[in-house]
Amino acid sequence: MSIFEGFLSTSETLSAFSDHNFVGAMLRFEAALTRAQAALGLVPETAAHSIVGSCKVELFDVAKIVRDSGRAGSVAIPLVKALKEAVGLFNPAAVPFVHFGSTSQDVIDTAMALVTREGIALIEADVDRAIEALLQHAAQHAATPILARTLMQPASVTSFGLKCAGWAAPLVRSRARLREAARHALSVQLGGAVGTLAQMKGQGPAVVQRVADELGLGNAGATWHTQRDEWVALGCELGLLTGSLGKIARDIALMGQYEVGEVAEPTEPGRGGSSAMPHKRNPVAAMVALAAAQRAPQRVAALLAAMPQEHERALGGWQAELAEWPQLLMSAHGSARALASALPGLQIDAARMRANIDTLRSELPREAADEWFDPALAGPAGETALRQVAALRAQLTAKDTP
Amino acid sequence: MSIFEGFLSTSETLSAFSDHNFVGAMLRFEAALTRAQAALGLVPETAAHSIVGSCKVELFDVAKIVRDSGRAGSVAIPLVKALKEAVGLFNPAAVPFVHFGSTSQDVIDTAMALVTREGIALIEADVDRAIEALLQHAAQHAATPILARTLMQPASVTSFGLKCAGWAAPLVRSRARLREAARHALSVQLGGAVGTLAQMKGQGPAVVQRVADELGLGNAGATWHTQRDEWVALGCELGLLTGSLGKIARDIALMGQYEVGEVAEPTEPGRGGSSAMPHKRNPVAAMVALAAAQRAPQRVAALLAAMPQEHERALGGWQAELAEWPQLLMSAHGSARALASALPGLQIDAARMRANIDTLRSELPREAADEWFDPALAGPAGETALRQVAALRAQLTAKDTP
Amino acid sequence: MSIFEGFLSTSETLSAFSDHNFVGAMLRFEAALTRAQAALGLVPETAAHSIVGSCKVELFDVAKIVRDSGRAGSVAIPLVKALKEAVGLFNPAAVPFVHFGSTSQDVIDTAMALVTREGIALIEADVDRAIEALLQHAAQHAATPILARTLMQPASVTSFGLKCAGWAAPLVRSRARLREAARHALSVQLGGAVGTLAQMKGQGPAVVQRVADELGLGNAGATWHTQRDEWVALGCELGLLTGSLGKIARDIALMGQYEVGEVAEPTEPGRGGSSAMPHKRNPVAAMVALAAAQRAPQRVAALLAAMPQEHERALGGWQAELAEWPQLLMSAHGSARALASALPGLQIDAARMRANIDTLRSELPREAADEWFDPALAGPAGETALRQVAALRAQLTAKDTP
Amino acid sequence: MSIFEGFLSTSETLSAFSDHNFVGAMLRFEAALTRAQAALGLVPETAAHSIVGSCKVELFDVAKIVRDSGRAGSVAIPLVKALKEAVGLFNPAAVPFVHFGSTSQDVIDTAMALVTREGIALIEADVDRAIEALLQHAAQHAATPILARTLMQPASVTSFGLKCAGWAAPLVRSRARLREAARHALSVQLGGAVGTLAQMKGQGPAVVQRVADELGLGNAGATWHTQRDEWVALGCELGLLTGSLGKIARDIALMGQYEVGEVAEPTEPGRGGSSAMPHKRNPVAAMVALAAAQRAPQRVAALLAAMPQEHERALGGWQAELAEWPQLLMSAHGSARALASALPGLQIDAARMRANIDTLRSELPREAADEWFDPALAGPAGETALRQVAALRAQLTAKDTP
Repeated sequence: MSIFEGFLSTSETLSAFSDHNFVGAMLRFEAALTRAQAALGLVPETAAHSIVGSCKVELFDVAKIVRDSGRAGSVAIPLVKALKEAVGLFNPAAVPFVHFGSTSQDVIDTAMALVTREGIALIEADVDRAIEALLQHAAQHAATPILARTLMQPASVTSFGLKCAGWAAPLVRSRARLREAARHALSVQLGGAVGTLAQMKGQGPAVVQRVADELGLGNAGATWHTQRDEWVALGCELGLLTGSLGKIARDIALMGQYEVGEVAEPTEPGRGGSSAMPHKRNPVAAMVALAAAQRAPQRVAALLAAMPQEHERALGGWQAELAEWPQLLMSAHGSARALASALPGLQIDAARMRANIDTLRSELPREAADEWFDPALAGPAGETALRQVAALRAQLTAKDTP
Repeated sequence: MSIFEGFLSTSETLSAFSDHNFVGAMLRFEAALTRAQAALGLVPETAAHSIVGSCKVELFDVAKIVRDSGRAGSVAIPLVKALKEAVGLFNPAAVPFVHFGSTSQDVIDTAMALVTREGIALIEADVDRAIEALLQHAAQHAATPILARTLMQPASVTSFGLKCAGWAAPLVRSRARLREAARHALSVQLGGAVGTLAQMKGQGPAVVQRVADELGLGNAGATWHTQRDEWVALGCELGLLTGSLGKIARDIALMGQYEVGEVAEPTEPGRGGSSAMPHKRNPVAAMVALAAAQRAPQRVAALLAAMPQEHERALGGWQAELAEWPQLLMSAHGSARALASALPGLQIDAARMRANIDTLRSELPREAADEWFDPALAGPAGETALRQVAALRAQLTAKDTP
Repeated sequence: MSIFEGFLSTSETLSAFSDHNFVGAMLRFEAALTRAQAALGLVPETAAHSIVGSCKVELFDVAKIVRDSGRAGSVAIPLVKALKEAVGLFNPAAVPFVHFGSTSQDVIDTAMALVTREGIALIEADVDRAIEALLQHAAQHAATPILARTLMQPASVTSFGLKCAGWAAPLVRSRARLREAARHALSVQLGGAVGTLAQMKGQGPAVVQRVADELGLGNAGATWHTQRDEWVALGCELGLLTGSLGKIARDIALMGQYEVGEVAEPTEPGRGGSSAMPHKRNPVAAMVALAAAQRAPQRVAALLAAMPQEHERALGGWQAELAEWPQLLMSAHGSARALASALPGLQIDAARMRANIDTLRSELPREAADEWFDPALAGPAGETALRQVAALRAQLTAKDTP
Repeated sequence: MSIFEGFLSTSETLSAFSDHNFVGAMLRFEAALTRAQAALGLVPETAAHSIVGSCKVELFDVAKIVRDSGRAGSVAIPLVKALKEAVGLFNPAAVPFVHFGSTSQDVIDTAMALVTREGIALIEADVDRAIEALLQHAAQHAATPILARTLMQPASVTSFGLKCAGWAAPLVRSRARLREAARHALSVQLGGAVGTLAQMKGQGPAVVQRVADELGLGNAGATWHTQRDEWVALGCELGLLTGSLGKIARDIALMGQYEVGEVAEPTEPGRGGSSAMPHKRNPVAAMVALAAAQRAPQRVAALLAAMPQEHERALGGWQAELAEWPQLLMSAHGSARALASALPGLQIDAARMRANIDTLRSELPREAADEWFDPALAGPAGETALRQVAALRAQLTAKDTP
C-alpha cells in the first residue's frame, strides 16, 4: 500500500505501523503480561524467563505471521502459535503459560495502543512546529493588511497576522485535546476471553496494573473490548486536527494561486515539480494536507459506525476499526508534517497583499473603498492578532506545565 | 421532513430546531447585541429600545423568511430585512442600528448555539435516565449468569450485571465529555463582516462579552467563523454517544431474539406493533437507537469534511455544516430517549439466561463445559460489576459537584 | 427542517417530500392495491369501492399520523389505522380488506418510489437546462484562450469552450445513468408480511403487476424488502451527479474570485447579497452546489452502510435509509437548479481570460512563455471542444430516442 | 499495512495493488505510449526501441521510487526520472522522448486502471462462485421451511431456498452492473499536461486509440483528469456489491448463533479458531464480509467527496482518491472471496430450522400458530424460489452471451 499512501504520509508513521513494529509491540505485551503474572505468582519464574526471552521480534518470521492471519481471521492467533513454538523449543513446560489468561483482542488492542502512542508523539512534534511558525508569522505580520474574503469574494481588510493567529488557535486547542484524549485512550487492554479476567482468578486487576505500568499505558479500570468510546474519541481528535490543518492548507492554496500571489510554499529541490512542466512549482504541502482532510472524515465515520459492537467481542466491527485506524494516523501525520515543513519558510508577499487591496480600491467608489477596504483596518486587526498570540502562547505554556 | 425524521427523533428536539424556535433564537441574538451596544454607547438608547422591542418572533412571518432565504442564500438576510422594516415602521432613525456591526454568520451561528443548548439539555436528561436504569440493573443482576459471546458465538460465562455496567460506563464518560465539549462549543459568534469587529471600533470585545453574558453562552475569545474545531468537536461527542447507545441497542436486539429470549423491551399500547401481524411486538427502542447509530457517523463525517473553510467565511462548507447539524442532535436525542424509555422497564429473564447456558453445557464435553461455561463464573464477574457500579456512581457524583 | 434545508434545496423538492405529499402517495398505493385485488377477486367490489373512496389525503389528519408514527415506529401503522377508521365509518365490512396482504414496508417503499419519481423528474429537467447552457458556451467560446491550471497553478493554455465541454460531459452521462438507475429502482414494493405474498394465495404476482401498471412503477420480479441494491444504486447516481455539479461549481467559484475575474454568476435582485456589506455579490449558485457536493457523499455512505439488512426486514437499517433518502434528492435538486439557473446567464469575460495569460507571459522567459502559454494553444483545444460538443449532442439525441 | 488489511483482503488483490505491480503497470503505459507515438511518427523508431526496452519493472528500484514519491508529491515523477536515467545510459538521444506529451496523471490513472482490471477480474470470479453456490442451495432447499424474521423477531414462515434466491439476486445484478461500469471506467488516461494533448499536435487522438488498443483499455473520447464520474461510478458498484455481500453475511451470522443454529460456516483447519478457547469456531467469512461492508461505504464517500476537482488537475482531491481506491477493491475482494469460500460448504441444518418453528408454534395460540407459522407456508415460497432461480440463471446466461 505504500505506493498510494507513501506520498501522503511519512516514513516515520509508516514505520510505526509496519508489520515488524506491530508484531514487536504484540511481543512487548506478551512479555509484560508474563512478567506481571510471574510477579504475582500466576506463572512460574522459570516459565516466565523462557517466555520473556522469546518475545523478541527478530526471532519471528513476521511475513509468515501476517500471511497466516488471513486464514485465522486474526493476527494474534499465528503470533501466539509461533511464540508457543519458540518457547517450546527449549522449555516445553512453559508453553501453557504463554498468553495465559489473555485473548487475541488483548494483545492486538494493546499493541495498537503502543504503536499509536508513537504516532501521536510524531504528530504532536510536528503540530508544535507548525504552531511555532504560525505564531511567529502572526507576530511579524500582525498588522500587514490583506484582503479579507468571504464566500470567496473580497469583503474587507484584515491583517495577515490575524489570519495566522486564526490558523494557530485550533492547533493549540487540538494539541491539548489530543493529549487529553490520548491519556484516556492509550490504555492497556486485558480482559481475557470474555472480559472477566476469569482465568487469573482474583489477580486480574493487579496484573492489568502491572502491565500498564510496564508499558507506560493507562489502566482504564475495565475491559474495553466492545466499549470503544475512548478509543474512537482519540480518532475524532485526529479527524479534528486534520480538518484544522486542512483549513490552513485551503487558504494557502487559494492565496498561492498565481493571480493572487500572496504566499508561496518554500522551494526545495525535488519537491513539487511537474513531470511534464519543468518550470512549474506545485504547493505540495497544501496538497498533502488537503488530501488528508478529505480522507480523515471517512476514517472517523468508519470508526464511529463500528461502535455498536456485539456482546463481548464484535463480529466485523472491531476488525473494521483495526483496519481503518492506521490510515487515520498516517493522514494526520502526513498533514502535520507537510505543514510543519512548509510553514516556517512560507514565502509571504506583503507587497502583493497590499497591491491586491489597492487594485480593488481603484475599481470601487471612493466611499465604499474607504469604508470596507481601507488598509488602515489592518491596524486594529493587528492588535487583536497580538492579543491572540499572547493568549495562545500562554495556553501552550500552561499545557506544558504538569 | 418530519415524516422521515419524526419516528427516529423526538417532538422536543424537532421543536428546538423548528423554524419558529430558530428565528426566535436569531431575534434573541439581535436583541442582546443591541442591548450590549447601547450599554457601551454604540447605539442610542431610543434606537435600542425600538429594536429590542421588535425582536419578538410573534411579529414575524417565519414562513416568508424561510422562503426568502432560498433566494438570498442565507436566512439572516431576510430576517434582518424584516427586522429593519419592523423597526422602521415606528422609529426610522433606529434602522441603521439594527444588526449593527454584525454579519449573517454571527446571528446564525449564535442562534444555532442557543437551540443546540436546548438539544443538549434534552439529551443529557435522557442519558441520565438511561444510566440510572443500567446501574440499577447492574446492581440487581450483578451475579446473574449469562453466556458471554464473542464473534457472535458463546465463549464463556459472564454476568448480566457486568454487561449492564459495561453499557453504562461509556454513557457516564459521554456525559462528562459532552459537558466539556458543550462548554467550549456553545459560544457566542460575533465577529462582524470579516471577523475583526471593525465597525465597533475598540468596543468589539466588550460587546462580545456582554452578549455572551446575556445569552448565557461562552466567549471564545476570538471569532470562530472559519475555525470550527470546537463546534465540530461537540458534533463528534454526539457521534460517540450515539455509537455507545447503539452498542446497547445492538446487544438488546440480539438478546431479544425469540431464540435467545433473555431480554425484551417493555410493552406499551400503540408501540412496536406490526401493521400486518397484530401478535408481533417489535423492539422499537433498539430500532431507533440502531438507526441513529447508522446515521450519526455520516453526519460527523460531513462536519469534519466541511472544516477546511475558505478564508474569513466559507463558500459551501459552512452552509453544509449548518444543514447537517440539526439531524445529529435529532438522532442523538431520538436514541437517548428511546433507551431512557426502554431500559427502566426492560424485561430481564434470568431463568432463560441460565437455560441458554445449561443447554450449551449439555452439548459439550464435561471438561469444556466446566472450564468455560460454569455458571459460577458469574460470581467474580458480579464482584467486578459491583466495583464498576460504585466507580461509575462516584464519577457521576464528582461530575455533578461544581 | 426547512430553515436549514430551504436555502440549499428547492420548494418543488421540499413539496415532493412533504408530509402531505408522502401520505398522499401512501394512499395512492393503498388504493391501487385494493383495485388490483378487487380485479383479481381477492377483495369484494363493494369493499374496494369503499376503500378506494377513502384513499384521499384530504380526509386525513396528516400531522396526527406523523405524530403517532413516533410511538408506532413506522408511519404506515397510524396511516393504516386511520384508513381503517375512515372506511369503517360507512362500511365496516370493508375494514378487513384495507391494506390486505400488505405490510408497512410495502406502502412506505412504494410511496417513497412515487415521490422520488417526482424528484428525479425535477432533477432531470434542471440537468438538461444546465447541459444546454454549457454546450452553448462551449460552442461559442470553443477557441477562447484561458489559462489551464493544475494543482491550482497555471500550467498551460486551454480554451474556455473545452472547459465547458468537460463540465457538460459528466452531466450527459449522469442523465443517461440516472434514467437507467431509476428504471430499475422505481419499482413497486409488495411482498406482504415477510416477502412471500402468502396472504394473496397464488395471486400475489398478478397483484404486483397490476399495482405496478396503475402506479407506473416497475415490477422488480421479487420483493426488495432487504435487497436494496437497485434502490441504493439510484442513490449512488444522485451522489455522482452532485459530485459532477460540484466540480463545475468549484471551478466557477475559483474563476470568479476577484483576482481571477474570468466568470461571474448572473446578478438578480435579492440574490447573493450580504447582510453586512451591501456592495458585495456572492456566488450563491456555486455555494449551493458546493454545499450539496459536501453533503451527498455522506448520504450515499449512509445508504450503503445500511445495506446489510437483517433477514426479511431490518431493524434500524431500513429506517435509517428512509430518513437519509429525501435529503439526497433535496441536495441534488438544489444543486441542479442552482446551476441550471446560473449557467445560462454566466458572465464570461474573455478579455480577462486573455489578460491573465498575458500577465503570466510577461513574467516568464520567452521560451517558456511560448512553449506553454501561447494563446494559440486554444486553437486545437477549440477543435477538440467542438468535436466533444457534437458527440455530446449526439448522445443526448440518442438517449431521447426510445 | 498488510498486517491490518491482510486478514480482510486476499493475497491476490494485495499483489495486484503491490508497489511492484503498480510500477510495472506504469511502465506498460510508458511502453505503449512510446510504441504508439513511434507508429505515428512522433518518436523515432530507435528512440522507441530504447525506451520500450527499458520499460521492465525488474530494472528499477521500486522501493526507491516509492520513497522519492513522498518528496515529489507524485509517484510518476521519480519513475519518469528513473526511466530517463535508464534510457540515457545507452541512448541519450532517446531521453527527450520518454513520457513524451504525457503527464503524471496520465501514467498513474492508466496504471490504476490496469491493476484495477486485475482486481475486478478476481472479484467477478469469486462473485460467480458465490452465486453458483447460492443458486444450488436455493434449488435444493427451495421449500425447506424456516422462520421469516422482521425487525429481528419471528414474523411468519418462508423457505430457506427463497432466502438463498434473495441473497443471489443482488449478486447477479451487481455482476452485470459491475461489468458495465468497468467497461466505462477502465479507460486509458492520456491528455498531456493540461488535457489538450497539445504536444502531440494533431496526432493525440490517434495515439490515445493505439495506447487503448495495446493495453486493452477503453478510449473515453476525452481526458478524464478531473471528470471522475465514470471512475467513481465503478467505485460505487464495488460499494453496492460489498453491501449485498454484507447482507448475506449478516444473515448467516444471525442464523449461525448458537441459540439459532440454522447454518454454520464450513470447518477448515487453522480457520476461525480462538487464541484463548480451542473449542470455539468463529464465523470468519461473515466477519470478513461484515468488516468490508462497514468500510466500503466510507471509501465510496471519500471518492464522491473528492469529485469537485479543481480545473485541469486537482490539488488534494485526485491524490485522496488514489489513496482510497485500492482498499475498496481489497475489501470487495476480501468479502467476495470469503463468501465464495464459505457458501459452497455452508452447513445447513433443515431440522433445526423446523425445530425453531415448532418451538414457537408450541408457545402460540393455535390460531396464530396456524395463520403465521404453518410450515406449509414454505411451499408457495419454494415455488417462488424456483422461479427466481430460473430467472437468475437466465440473466446469467444472457449476460455471458456477447
